[in-house]
Amino acid sequence: MESDFIAWVRSRLQPGLRLLLGPGDDAAVVRLAPRADCVVTTDLLTDTVDFHLAEVDPRRVGHKALAVNLSDLAAMAARPVAVVVSLALPRRGGLQLGIDLVEGMLPLAEKHDVEIAGGDTNSWDAPLAISITAIGETTDAGLLRRGGARPGDAIVVTGRFGGSILGKHLDFSPRVDEALHLAANYPIHAGIDVSDSLSIDLAHVCRESGCGAIVKTPAIPIAPAADELAASGAGGQTALDHALSDGEDFELILAVPWAEAERLVMLQPLDVPLTIIGRFVEESGLWQVSDGGAQTRLEPRGFEHTFTQ
Amino acid sequence: MESDFIAWVRSRLQPGLRLLLGPGDDAAVVRLAPRADCVVTTDLLTDTVDFHLAEVDPRRVGHKALAVNLSDLAAMAARPVAVVVSLALPRRGGLQLGIDLVEGMLPLAEKHDVEIAGGDTNSWDAPLAISITAIGETTDAGLLRRGGARPGDAIVVTGRFGGSILGKHLDFSPRVDEALHLAANYPIHAGIDVSDSLSIDLAHVCRESGCGAIVKTPAIPIAPAADELAASGAGGQTALDHALSDGEDFELILAVPWAEAERLVMLQPLDVPLTIIGRFVEESGLWQVSDGGAQTRLEPRGFEHTFTQ
Repeated sequence: MESDFIAWVRSRLQPGLRLLLGPGDDAAVVRLAPRADCVVTTDLLTDTVDFHLAEVDPRRVGHKALAVNLSDLAAMAARPVAVVVSLALPRRGGLQLGIDLVEGMLPLAEKHDVEIAGGDTNSWDAPLAISITAIGETTDAGLLRRGGARPGDAIVVTGRFGGSILGKHLDFSPRVDEALHLAANYPIHAGIDVSDSLSIDLAHVCRESGCGAIVKTPAIPIAPAADELAASGAGGQTALDHALSDGEDFELILAVPWAEAERLVMLQPLDVPLTIIGRFVEESGLWQVSDGGAQTRLEPRGFEHTFTQ
Repeated sequence: MESDFIAWVRSRLQPGLRLLLGPGDDAAVVRLAPRADCVVTTDLLTDTVDFHLAEVDPRRVGHKALAVNLSDLAAMAARPVAVVVSLALPRRGGLQLGIDLVEGMLPLAEKHDVEIAGGDTNSWDAPLAISITAIGETTDAGLLRRGGARPGDAIVVTGRFGGSILGKHLDFSPRVDEALHLAANYPIHAGIDVSDSLSIDLAHVCRESGCGAIVKTPAIPIAPAADELAASGAGGQTALDHALSDGEDFELILAVPWAEAERLVMLQPLDVPLTIIGRFVEESGLWQVSDGGAQTRLEPRGFEHTFTQ
């Protein structure tokens, strides 16, 4: 029963000081820092599209559902505060599934001091859908937006790219602490997290910033999983193709003034590597430069939800 | 395509002053009133459970998805500020469906100055699921909670009950303005909105308040739709049965000090009728008293999501 699940959730949570009112009423109440604005993002994941429940531990799915939302807050350099969790659970086995999903969220929520403030639990005769909304707060460092990149800025990325389908798309760590540290200590002009693909999300930054970008492809940090996929030969793509067009790396792309970017990659202040992979330019569009120096168009490719008539 | 839908949404909205950053970035940014706390609630609706898409105009579904969330904010006497909308759209016809859903939300959002701040759009090979999270702010009148009812308080309700399945469950007006007016002008001890049923939601207030309630059943305002259902004979229930056990009336149940409640029902300060239907008492449990004066147990009945093993 829905009420059994809610009772379990209430017993399992240890509300912190920011949560003035937690699960059990018609709404939750959260206190943001004085003068902070409320940053809000939502992501809905569905079985067979974002994960295959038949093949994975549902706790990994719960982790992912929370992590994708925290990644969006990281992309804004916002501090996460609370989330609400809505579940459409298949009727058969739904209670245990709900419990496993929340169990998968708790370690990540605790790591980032995020309150699970409430939610909505439903059963139906259809596959699992999970919708999480995350609430964060702005910090004194200000917001990181997509639209702030300037020609001459370096394109700086965290981590490595490609092949996340082999596991990282479920188990990744959202770059929350990294984004807060960078925004507080460096003049970052723009940011986005890579959900669709490195090339598509870089194109988003360019479009919103009214500029273009040249990517030095040999500089792109390739994930071992991208090499593995390329070696398997499936799809005929190179590791670089995977790095540019695979979705769900959930790394950050940042626009950083060139001199600051060079300081950043020298200092490497994070646990995750920071790499300059190119620069933003006046002319719109994406371009790639290989070792030989030839400059060609870079066509953004990656995942997009599609409809039929 | 997902991007077509997002472009349409961005073109359709007219962001207000509270929305510092609207759809199109990784998260939205909303400004709450100074010193207000953030009130957050979420509701997920699914095809075949909360509506039957094959039988209704999707704009009514969009209205309902927003209205149930605003009703939760009303139950807290919070002022609505913004919502985010997550859609799991069936692949076939999903683009037009998404547009119709949002079109159905807009009049209600405009009426209450609620910003559609962002969302997440997905396609899949399964029925429609809509998850909305609403963000509100506390007011100087303070929060209305479920747990504040005191023995001796009157049970005051807005509107009429029962038979909402005939149409009201799709087209109802959430009692947002009513709740804000009452909380600002009267000492309301507790509140809830009726989503599961009058009897179940009253039982929620009793449990959270550590008290019981006696309902004077002849005083319950019966909706014409409840009479209609009873007259149809389906299910063998009386109109009163429907009023007590039908879900989704989305009226308010309030705990009000007796003298203030008498003043309220005399003044009738709202467009919707206010009625005293009984009183909260020390002894736990729900009781009903008919015209004859006999007091019997009132078993809470209504809708709950269930699971199977």
